[in-house]
Parts: sequence; C-alpha cells; structure tokens
Amino acid sequence: MIPFLPFQSSVSITLSVVLACGIFALFVAAIFRILIGLCNPGTKKMQDIAHQVRIGAMAFLRREYVVIVGFVFVVGVLLYVFLDATWAGATSGVWVPPYTAGSFVLGAFCSVLAGFIGMRTATVANVRTTQAARTSVGKALRIAFLSGATMGLSVVGLGLIGLTGAILYLTEYTSVSLPQALTILAGFSFGASSVALFARVGGGIFTKAADVGADLVGKVEAGIPEDDPRNPAVIADNVGDNVGDVAGMGADLFESYVGSLVAAMLIGSTVDWGTSADALEAAILFPLIISAFGIIASVLGTFVVRVGKDSTNVHDALKNGLFLSSALVILFAFFFAQNMLPPQVWWGVFLALVSGLVVGVIIGMITEYYTSATYAPVRDLAGSAKTGAATIIISGLALGYMSTFLPVLFICIAIAIAFTQAGLYGIAISAVGMLSTLGISLAIDAYGPVADNAGGLAEMSNLPKQVRERTDALDSAGNTTAAIGKGFAIGSAALTALALFSAFSTAASIQAINLMNPMTLIGLLLGGTLPYIFSSMTMQAVGRAAFAMIEEVRRQFKEIKGLMKGTAVGDSARCVDIATAAAINEMMLPGIIAVATPVLIGLLLGTEALGGLLAGSLVSGVLLAISMANSGGAWDNAKKYIEAGNLGGKGSAPHKAAVVGDTVGDPFKDTSGPSINILVKLMTIVSVLTVGLYTAHGLIG
Amino acid sequence: MIPFLPFQSSVSITLSVVLACGIFALFVAAIFRILIGLCNPGTKKMQDIAHQVRIGAMAFLRREYVVIVGFVFVVGVLLYVFLDATWAGATSGVWVPPYTAGSFVLGAFCSVLAGFIGMRTATVANVRTTQAARTSVGKALRIAFLSGATMGLSVVGLGLIGLTGAILYLTEYTSVSLPQALTILAGFSFGASSVALFARVGGGIFTKAADVGADLVGKVEAGIPEDDPRNPAVIADNVGDNVGDVAGMGADLFESYVGSLVAAMLIGSTVDWGTSADALEAAILFPLIISAFGIIASVLGTFVVRVGKDSTNVHDALKNGLFLSSALVILFAFFFAQNMLPPQVWWGVFLALVSGLVVGVIIGMITEYYTSATYAPVRDLAGSAKTGAATIIISGLALGYMSTFLPVLFICIAIAIAFTQAGLYGIAISAVGMLSTLGISLAIDAYGPVADNAGGLAEMSNLPKQVRERTDALDSAGNTTAAIGKGFAIGSAALTALALFSAFSTAASIQAINLMNPMTLIGLLLGGTLPYIFSSMTMQAVGRAAFAMIEEVRRQFKEIKGLMKGTAVGDSARCVDIATAAAINEMMLPGIIAVATPVLIGLLLGTEALGGLLAGSLVSGVLLAISMANSGGAWDNAKKYIEAGNLGGKGSAPHKAAVVGDTVGDPFKDTSGPSINILVKLMTIVSVLTVGLYTAHGLIG
Repeated sequence: MIPFLPFQSSVSITLSVVLACGIFALFVAAIFRILIGLCNPGTKKMQDIAHQVRIGAMAFLRREYVVIVGFVFVVGVLLYVFLDATWAGATSGVWVPPYTAGSFVLGAFCSVLAGFIGMRTATVANVRTTQAARTSVGKALRIAFLSGATMGLSVVGLGLIGLTGAILYLTEYTSVSLPQALTILAGFSFGASSVALFARVGGGIFTKAADVGADLVGKVEAGIPEDDPRNPAVIADNVGDNVGDVAGMGADLFESYVGSLVAAMLIGSTVDWGTSADALEAAILFPLIISAFGIIASVLGTFVVRVGKDSTNVHDALKNGLFLSSALVILFAFFFAQNMLPPQVWWGVFLALVSGLVVGVIIGMITEYYTSATYAPVRDLAGSAKTGAATIIISGLALGYMSTFLPVLFICIAIAIAFTQAGLYGIAISAVGMLSTLGISLAIDAYGPVADNAGGLAEMSNLPKQVRERTDALDSAGNTTAAIGKGFAIGSAALTALALFSAFSTAASIQAINLMNPMTLIGLLLGGTLPYIFSSMTMQAVGRAAFAMIEEVRRQFKEIKGLMKGTAVGDSARCVDIATAAAINEMMLPGIIAVATPVLIGLLLGTEALGGLLAGSLVSGVLLAISMANSGGAWDNAKKYIEAGNLGGKGSAPHKAAVVGDTVGDPFKDTSGPSINILVKLMTIVSVLTVGLYTAHGLIG
Repeated sequence: MIPFLPFQSSVSITLSVVLACGIFALFVAAIFRILIGLCNPGTKKMQDIAHQVRIGAMAFLRREYVVIVGFVFVVGVLLYVFLDATWAGATSGVWVPPYTAGSFVLGAFCSVLAGFIGMRTATVANVRTTQAARTSVGKALRIAFLSGATMGLSVVGLGLIGLTGAILYLTEYTSVSLPQALTILAGFSFGASSVALFARVGGGIFTKAADVGADLVGKVEAGIPEDDPRNPAVIADNVGDNVGDVAGMGADLFESYVGSLVAAMLIGSTVDWGTSADALEAAILFPLIISAFGIIASVLGTFVVRVGKDSTNVHDALKNGLFLSSALVILFAFFFAQNMLPPQVWWGVFLALVSGLVVGVIIGMITEYYTSATYAPVRDLAGSAKTGAATIIISGLALGYMSTFLPVLFICIAIAIAFTQAGLYGIAISAVGMLSTLGISLAIDAYGPVADNAGGLAEMSNLPKQVRERTDALDSAGNTTAAIGKGFAIGSAALTALALFSAFSTAASIQAINLMNPMTLIGLLLGGTLPYIFSSMTMQAVGRAAFAMIEEVRRQFKEIKGLMKGTAVGDSARCVDIATAAAINEMMLPGIIAVATPVLIGLLLGTEALGGLLAGSLVSGVLLAISMANSGGAWDNAKKYIEAGNLGGKGSAPHKAAVVGDTVGDPFKDTSGPSINILVKLMTIVSVLTVGLYTAHGLIG
C-alpha cells in the first residue's frame, strides 16, 4: 500500500470524503432543480393541467406514505424486539439502543425522500419540457434530462449519505465496532427494500391500471384519442408515469445501490487477505469510495448529454454520457484499487469491479437489441401480427423467453470473473461496479417518463402538431432507454441479490447450502414458485384495478353532462383516488408474502432450506423478470413500428393485433416484471438480517 | 425378514416374477387389441378416411424412425467409446462388450415398440369407436378405453421386460455384478429418453402445426367447419392427435417409468441399512416388484371403467378405475414392504411409496381444478374474455402462474415425507409409487385422442348428428383427462428427475453441490435458462411449421379445381409430409442442446456446476411446464365453455377473444410445456450416465 492518500490511515476521514461526495450529489441535484424551476412553465392551460398531474402524484404519495409509516412502525418494533434486544445480548430491564430498527427507519426515510424529490422535480419539469419543445428538441431534452439527473443524483447522494452517516455515527458516537455497524446497516438496506416494495409494486399497479383503464374506455369505447383531455382517466395515466416510472424505478435502484454496498462491506469485513487490519478496513471502505467517485463521474457525464438545436439524435447523446461516466469510473477504480488495497489483491478486485460495470452496459445493449424496432427481433415480431393476435402473442412470448439467455450468460461471466479474481467479495464488488454509474444511468431512465408526460401535456393543451412531434422524438428515445433501463434494473437486481446471497452465505453458520440435501431442494422449488405467485397476483391486480377505473370513467361519461362535448370537466381526482386505493390494497398480500416467506422457511426448515429458497426465487425470478420485460418492450415497439406506417400502419389488421400484444405487455413490463426485482432483493435482505434467528435445520426440517 | 416368499432367497426368481408380470401386461394388451379388431369398422367411407389417418401416422413414424436409428447409432458409438471402453478398464486391443451402448439401444427399441403398438392400436380403434358411437356412448367408451389400455399396458410391460431382461442377462450370462448392471441400465433409461425427445418434441410440433394450420386456413380463411373433409390439412390434424397425444405422451411416460425405476435401483444399491447383503438386494428389487404388481392392479382397474348404455358420466368411470388400481397398489406395497424389507425400514419405505402415489392423484385433481370449466378459475377466465383478447391472455397467464404453487407444494411434501422416512432411496421410491399405476393412468390419457379422432371421423364421414354428440361426450371427458394427464406427466417427470438427480448425487464423487460456491450458482442460472430457450424454440417451430402448412393448403385450394365444392380430393399426404419434415427438422437443435449442454458444462465447469445446472433446469422447467400446461388447458376449456352457450356463445365477441386464448394455448399445452418434461429428464439421465467422465472442478471452473 502506497502511503499516498491521507485517509488510508483513518476510517473516519475516508468516510468523511464519501459523505462529502454524497452531499455534493445533492448539491448538484439542487442546482439542477433550480435550473429547471427557472425555465418557462408555459401557458395558463398547460400549467393548469400540469398542476392537476402534480396534485394527483402528491395525493398518491401522501396515501402511500401513510401506509409506509404504519408498515415501518410495525416492522421497526419487530426488528427491535427480535434483533436489537437479542443481538446486544441484553439482560432484562437494561435499555438497548434500537440500532437495527433505527437503521431500518433511516433506510426507509432516505428512499422515500429520494422518491419525493424525484417526483416533485419530474412534475415541475414535465410542463417546462413541453414549453421548451415549442422552441427546439435540444432545449426540451436538456430539461427532461436535468429532471432525470436530479432524481439520479438524489438517489445516489441520499444512499451514500445515509449509509456513511450511519457508520460514522455508530463508530464515532457509540461503542459499536465497524463490523458490528455493518450488520446493523443491513437494516438500512431492508428499509430501502420495504419502500421499494410499495413504490415499485404499488406504483406499477397504479400506472398500468390508469393506462389500461384510460385506453380501454377512451380509445376503444368512446373513440377519442390517447391523452384527450375529455377523458378523466388521462390525468391518472400521466400521474402513473411519475408514480411508476420515476418513483418506482428510483426506489428499485436505490434498493440495489444500497444493497450492493451493504453486501460488499459485509463480505469485506470477513475477507482473509492475510495482511493487517488496515487491509480489512480498506476492503470495507473501497466500495464506498468507488461509489463516491462514481458520483463525480456521473456529474461529469451529464455535461455531454446535449444535442444540437434541431437534431433528434437524442439516443446517442444519452449513451455518450453513460459511456463517459463508465470510463471515468474505471480510471478512478484503477487508481483507488492500486492505492488502497493490498498489492496481491488490487488487480483482482479491480477486474471484478470492471466486470460488473461492463456487463451492466452489455445487458443494456442486449435489451436494446431485443426491444428496439431497429433490429430484427421486433421487426419479425411485428411481421407475426399479419396472422393475427394469437401469433404475435406467441412470438412475443417466445422472444421474451429467448432473450433470457444472453443477459444471464453475461451475469454468469461477471460472477465467474469476479469470483475467480476476488472471491465472494469480488461478486459484491461486481454489483457495486455495475451500479457505480447509477447517478447518470438512472438519469437516463427517469428522463423517459418526463418526456412522455411532456407529450401528454402538449396533446391535452392542444399545442401545435410540431411540438408534439418534438416531444415524440424525445419520447421515442425515452421508450428505448426505458427498456434498457429495465434490463439494467433487472441485471443489477440479480447481481445485488447474488451479492446479498453471498453475504447471507458468509453470515450463515452452516458449512454448505447443499443441493444433495433434499431440504435444500424443497427450498429451491418453493422459492421458484414465489415469482410466479407474485406475478400472477400483480397481473390480476392490474386487471381488477383497471376494471374499477373503467367503471368510474363510464360513470362519469354517463353522469357528467357535456363531458364528451368538452363543455364540462371530468373528475380526475376521483380516478387518481381509485387507482391509488387499488394499488395500495392490491400490493399488501404480495408484500406480506415477500417479507414473511423467508422468515417462515427459516424458522420451519432452517438456514439451509432458506438458502435454497433464495436461490430458487433468484433463478426463477430473474428469468421471469427478463422475459416479461423484454416481451413487453418488444410488443410496445412492434406496435409503434406498425404505427410508423409499416405493415399497413395504424388501423390495419396487423395494428389491431399489435395493440393486443401491447396491452398484454403493459403489466408484463411495467408491473409484474419490475416487481420481481423487489421480491428477489427483499427476500434476500430479510434473510441476511434475520439469519441469526435460524438454526441449521429448523423446527420441522 | 419373514422367510415367507421363496424368491427372497434368489434374485433371479424375483426377477423372473417381474418379467412374468411384464409379459402378462403384453398378453392382456394383445387380448385388448384383438377385441378392438373384432369390432365393426363401419362404412366404406369411414374406413377410407381412417385408412388415410393411419397411413399418415405410419408415414410420420417411418420418417421419425430413420432419424432415430441414425441418432441411436451415433450416440451408441459414442457411449461405447467413452463409457464401455473406459469403465471396463480395458487395455488396448482387448474386446470390450458394448454393455452400456447395448442397453441404450434396447431402451430406445422398447420405447419405439411401445409407441408403435399404441399408434397402430389407436388408428384401428378410432373408426371402431365412431361406429360404436352409432349405438351407444358405453360401447364407444369401451373401445376407446381399451385402445388406451393397450398403450398403457404396452408401455409398462415393455419397460419392465426390457429392464428386467437386461438385468437377468447381465447377471446370469456375463460376469457383470448386480450393482454394475444397474449402472449399465442408466443407458436403457437414456435410450428411452432419446426416443421421448423425438416423439414428444417432434410429435408436439407436428400436432400443433397441423392443428393451427388446419384451423387458420379452414375456419378463418375458407370459412369451412372444423374437421371438414374438403380441408386437406384435416387428415394431418387427425394424424397429429395420434402422433402427439398417443405416441408422444406414451414415450414421455415410458421415460419417467423407466427413469424412476433405474434411479430407485441405483440408489437402492448404495443404501446403508446395516443388515445383510439380502437387504441390499431387496432394496434393488423392491421397486421392480411394486411396478410388477402395479400392472396387476392396473389390469384389474380397467375392468371397472364402464358406463351404462346411455350414460355420459365417462369421467367418473375413468376415475374409479384409477382409484381402484391405486388402492390395490397400496395393499400390494404394504404386503411386499413388510415381507421383503428389513423391519426397521419397511414402514418408512412404504410411506415414501404412498406419498408419491397419493401426490400423483392430488396433482391430477389440482390440474382439473385449474383447467376444467366446472370450477371457478376457468369460468372467471371465460368472463375475462368480455373485455377482449388481451385480458383473457393476461388472465390465462396469471392463472397458469398461480397454478404452479399447489403442485410444487405437494411435490415438496412428497419429497419431505419420502426423504425423512427413507432417505434419498425414499425419493426414488416415491417416484416409483407415483408411476406404479401407469398402466391405467396412461390408458386414461391415451383414450382421449382416440375419442377425439373418432369425433373427427364422424364429422368427415357425415354421420348423423347424434353420433357426433356421443363422441363429443367422450371427447369432452377426454379433454379433462388429457389436462389431468399432462399434470400427472409433469409431476411424474419432476419427481423422476428429482430421483435421477438423487442418483446423480449418489454417483458423483463430490461432497456437496454447494450453492455457496458461485460456480454452482452459475450452473443454476444457466440451467434455469434452458427451459426458456427450449420453449422459445419449440413455440417458434410450431409457428413456422404451421405457416408452411397454411401455404400448402392455400396452394391446394387454389390449384386443385373442385376442392372447395367437394368434387375433388385434396392431397392430404403432402400435408402430412410437410408437417413431418418440419417437426423433424425443428426438433434437431433443441434436442442437441438438451443432450450436449450437461456434457459441456460437466467437462468445462465440473460436477458441482453440473449439479447446479440440473437443479436450475429442474426448478425453472417444472414451473414453466406447469404454468404452460395449465394456461393452455384453461384457455381451451374457457373457449369450450363459451361455445356451450355461455357469455354469448359461439360467434360472440367473447368467443372470438377466447379463440385467441385457445390458439396461444395450443403450443403451450401440447408442444412446449410437455417438451420441457423431456428436457429436464434427459439432461439428468445424461448426467447420471456420464458423471464418471467429469472432475469436481472441470477445465475452466
């Protein structure tokens, strides 16, 4: 170790640097937010409609927060009673500080705050993007992207601040040692997961219920166009974009970000590099430093995301930002690995990190190949619409199934490189590497729904056709990046879950999770069913919630006189309310299953079967999630490809078939698929946190 | 051990009794076949059409056999070179007998023969069933069921004769010991699996290509009814019923039957019951004895499958037969377990056997619940057709996903009981128990396509409506039993694969297949993708083959003058030929993947990763197969439910939506789903057979 960096000698100085980078992220996010606020918000009518969307989004959040507070309270108490009180080895009557419970609450709070900032910003930026689109694509892109970047930087900033702050507090102000602090931080990760459950699953149900409901009544029954202001469900649909794609996606990736860091630090605290205690500290701090400088890299990357005034090459601009940030992270990582880590391991750890980072980008490209109309799969899929709805469904499902292979293969390659180069620690570092550029990659994802909303606002405000064309150019790039973002979200969820699984293995006091033991196989099989049950529930939930929405819109069209003629205004708030209530009710049972199953299996069948359960849900979940996301994305773009004038264009028989495909794909790609990410991570973090409660064989196993 | 049974003292006497039971099965099958032949074959026209179906079926078989012979030759040579020559520890220049290769050829031959008998009988019985339906349902049921029973008894008879004959030959006429003989028998099981691959995958592609092709051109384009003799693809469709549902299903279950027996005997040869060598022999012979007396039980069961002259309660009659046989097997098993096995284990082994048998029946009942229009799931599914094709697709997929839980749970319960009561041996015995009544349960499955064919013949021969009504009553019961049969096929495939996996664990020279080792996780993830790739390929194959069929029928309608008017005859043989060629071409790549992947992973990544691969493909395959089979079955019956006059009946908008669901479900339930059974078992048996070739870590793992 070269005595180059002063903070090598002191854990707290390093942590302070990390903390400073986290604060820097929030600072930049604040500047971006101010810049957006300074832009022209457009006409009165545009502002009115944007206001309704904003009100609706906040109404959803408010209601969701009430449930989250209740959930966090109950689980916090359980954590205190079963973990804090036990682990501290307390004797009765002595006060034990609620470290794990507190860490859990903090994790939930940071995730909620990041989502809140993202949503507030998105609902301010949407109308300004529309207004900017009256001038040029370049200006509109800038606003939509800054909104995404605000979200991305808030997520990574709050993630790092929360984690680092908690470690600093615990090690400086309490008697907790660094390794103990890491165990407590699993609670932080669980808090993040819990919020992700509400935001991603609830948000996913909301967004698709509103979307499907608005489409079925509006386009199909009433025969009015998409985003027509007469349709009272349209506001709910626009709210859904924010609720599902901004807040939901953000919470999902916040969870991955935090989970991979906690896993890396936990495993780092057990590495056997045969050197000094300094090396151990370096192993713990290295992932934090990488993430901290990943923020710097992301901020630098945002500066290259620009297009000329009238260029529409949005997609390349976004990609350039990501590539620049990735290259910078590799440079930083090379430097820090060499200087922080023992000489015999630094190269291996560096390779592990790069493997994750590169595979993250590759998975994005594979996803693009399978879901973009530029390539053969989606074009062939569109062609299959010629023989009707059934054939495009079959072909789309087949496409999704086939698309699982390459992402999984590359994840396996990343695992193989990471593990052979740096052991289990390497796997967690690989996940940290994949998520190190999250500041910008989330910006790219979260820009999509803002552009989508902007287009909706242009339509609802009856702006000139040219404006809608410009927002469509943004939206089209946004659809592709959204699909890529979904691929990245699944890939990172898988790698994070694998990292957390490694942390579980490290923490479990068993020798093996042996598949030769049939109890492990039982865990594996039961775990495999969970993503199926979960998907079934979320798909059915969308159907029920959409149906409630349809009934409401039908009622309004019937009872509110002049609504169809445009002389009266629909009750949008009621539509938002219905979707909100449905989303929150419907996510309860799947949520409880996700949290309770690992505990139940751990207690009944023991740690080894629990390991099987996690592995089973991981393998079946990753495959189902990838196939659903890619089938859905491909159907969506096959429809758009036909709408662009191919194969007969809009209104033709192939188009009708493609609409069926797209409708099936909606809950696939926006509700069930993404929800599986949460399920898999949540179950694993619950297991990491509670592994101390279980015995090797359980009560009946 | 009570010295009650004389054959306890001698392995060969026991084997002779088993052999005798196998011969008895074939004897009864021959009688049934003769009885069918004695029935009235109907009018000249009926016989003509039936003759065409028969010719088509035989044309398919002939072509398939050519490919199978080539495959068996190549693989046989490989087995000889890599296994026989090595295992025998041969020095160069010394002749080594091709035991494994020979056993492989024998297994393939027995499976082919069973399929051949089944197809010949079914294509004789179909027209006689139609003729009998001119008199009464009871008479028609009897013929169709006897045909199924001929198939069922041929499968179990040839399975037992092949296995037992091989053991007798090896132990009596060569220097091979009993445990060595069992290892060689894994080759027999591999032979059975190879034929199943061709019959189930190729047959599955054939049957759905013909079905979809005939429907799309006939019903949709030309506007002529189903089974109309003017449509030249209709003969191919009827051939498909025999090829897919008789020969394919038979080969699938032949593979399970043989695989579970081989697994039980292999594990039996390693049990440590701490008693004499007699106990070891008993452990090996017990599964054979149970299967032998399972034949007796099945034959007795066939006698109660009768309905009154004009009753239509076919379903209960079939169930009664199965229940009686199951009860008899339990009685036999109680007797033999107590008398053959050491006192400290007999009760546990008996419970393991019963657990499998009972769970097999339960899985059938669960399948019926999810796929029969008598229960809520299918009725709700039909209701979802009211809002269009997209919603019935979403609901059907959700239904399939949800339906995975209970079957998997019960399989897990069976494993748990079997393992805790009798160790790994118990798991294999549980599979043997599930398959012990195969003689009658396969009869029930294989009766369906005969009834289906009989209905088609009635339509094509323009018989009175009443006849078609009677065959429809048979066919309707046949659809339900076919769905149940699919559930049973998957359940038994899963349990057989688990049994073979246990045999693999026993044979592998490693301590653990440890999920804490990331190489195992890599195997698990890659294994998980295989059923997805396989399903994608088979689904696309059906699409391509159906399209080729459509083109051909369009050509014939265009070029053959008078075809539409019924004054000219279409070229059915050409349609059969196209479907045959497509089926055989399309199954090559998936087939090669199934056989080559385990060998590749074993060599490259080693035994432990191979274990992960098998577990991964098992868990992901079982879930995908169950969900596909049940979604498909449910869509089929939802359509029939609407056609029965509910929700608007035939021609209504919900009916059109339900037709889309049914068309998507066709490749799900009849091609891809069942093909996964084969994939999972085939990969496991290949691994059992070749496990000696691999090292713990492989070349790069």
